[in-house]
Amino acid sequence: MTDSWLPSLITATPQEGFELAITLSRRGVKYTQPDVETLKRLRSDYANSAEALTAASQVVAINFQTVAAANSYWREAALSE
Amino acid sequence: MTDSWLPSLITATPQEGFELAITLSRRGVKYTQPDVETLKRLRSDYANSAEALTAASQVVAINFQTVAAANSYWREAALSE
Amino acid sequence: MTDSWLPSLITATPQEGFELAITLSRRGVKYTQPDVETLKRLRSDYANSAEALTAASQVVAINFQTVAAANSYWREAALSE
Amino acid sequence: MTDSWLPSLITATPQEGFELAITLSRRGVKYTQPDVETLKRLRSDYANSAEALTAASQVVAINFQTVAAANSYWREAALSE
Amino acid sequence: MTDSWLPSLITATPQEGFELAITLSRRGVKYTQPDVETLKRLRSDYANSAEALTAASQVVAINFQTVAAANSYWREAALSE
Amino acid sequence: MTDSWLPSLITATPQEGFELAITLSRRGVKYTQPDVETLKRLRSDYANSAEALTAASQVVAINFQTVAAANSYWREAALSE
Repeated sequence: MTDSWLPSLITATPQEGFELAITLSRRGVKYTQPDVETLKRLRSDYANSAEALTAASQVVAINFQTVAAANSYWREAALSE
Repeated sequence: MTDSWLPSLITATPQEGFELAITLSRRGVKYTQPDVETLKRLRSDYANSAEALTAASQVVAINFQTVAAANSYWREAALSE
Repeated sequence: MTDSWLPSLITATPQEGFELAITLSRRGVKYTQPDVETLKRLRSDYANSAEALTAASQVVAINFQTVAAANSYWREAALSE
Repeated sequence: MTDSWLPSLITATPQEGFELAITLSRRGVKYTQPDVETLKRLRSDYANSAEALTAASQVVAINFQTVAAANSYWREAALSE
Repeated sequence: MTDSWLPSLITATPQEGFELAITLSRRGVKYTQPDVETLKRLRSDYANSAEALTAASQVVAINFQTVAAANSYWREAALSE
Repeated sequence: MTDSWLPSLITATPQEGFELAITLSRRGVKYTQPDVETLKRLRSDYANSAEALTAASQVVAINFQTVAAANSYWREAALSE
């Protein structure tokens, strides 16, 4: 993969940070299985399995820890509002 | 998803922080499977599986680590009581 | 759930902190499956499965990380003994 | 459980810290299944399953993170040798 | 393994850090199963399993936490742009 | 186990730190199943399972977080080169 998709871990809001965590989780999958058609087919599988959805949510949670720490938990943004 | 659901990680009490961790865990699922009807059907499945409930509790625990760190573990709130 | 069950993450001793981690782990389950009768039935299942017990212990370990950090690992309590 | 088994997270050496992490992992199981006979029976099961042993090692690794942080990674002990 | 493959955890950009996290994850596998032919065969298996891909993405997420912390989340790089 | 196998978490290089993380992961298994013959037999099993290898790599990743933090991510070593 030569495209640039992760210039920074800094986001304006916690919600954007959560969405970046989702991007990181999907990229982690895509580096292992780059074929888009295969990914689409598999997505319809795990989107209907409670266990697989929980596992996906766990990867997002781990990546969100990283993004949140990078942004010092957006504490200053909260104060300046 | 364009609605705003995560303006801040700061909460008044540890318990509210724990409830935010639950929200984060459910959102992690919802980004992968946005269809509410499917989610309802799956919930009745995993709410009756010990293994699935433990897995769900684990995602909450990981998200609670993030929220608790963001709030400096509510240490000052405890002192001012 | 409107009852107050988590006023603070601060505990007097590491052992009380570990027991709080167990409470957090069970609450993570209870938010998903609030029905007490169902929980009792499921508990007898996973209390007899090595895999499920290990998974439960893992959630406790993750929550204990949070509680231990909140208490600065009870380092000062150890010094004052 | 009313016995005192966790007076402190501080240990003299990393190896003692690792052994404390093992104790924490077993206690996490024991709080869910206190019956010693059942635990013995289950142990013979998972001690012969690669998957279960890896899962057990993972819980130890998580608890060791906590114990190691509590001891500031035994850095000073290393310097004074 | 005597080759040198990990001289540093420092990378110029978050994306290079993410790719290093992938390298770490693969090396974790390779230390257990060094045979390249076996690894190739297994890769075709898990690259077609949603569950296995999610598990792989989780290991990457954990390693990315380490690499991101090592690089102080590339905060300074972001400021100097 | 009475042998001394973990005198310190400090290593000269990141790669040695990663190898220490592997040692920690194996020791976590060995404390639960000390019998070497059983371990050899089980190793041939999970060395041919993509799922088990990913799980093993995850334990290494968690232990590497600990070792890397203990060594302050080898940042100074990188600067002095």
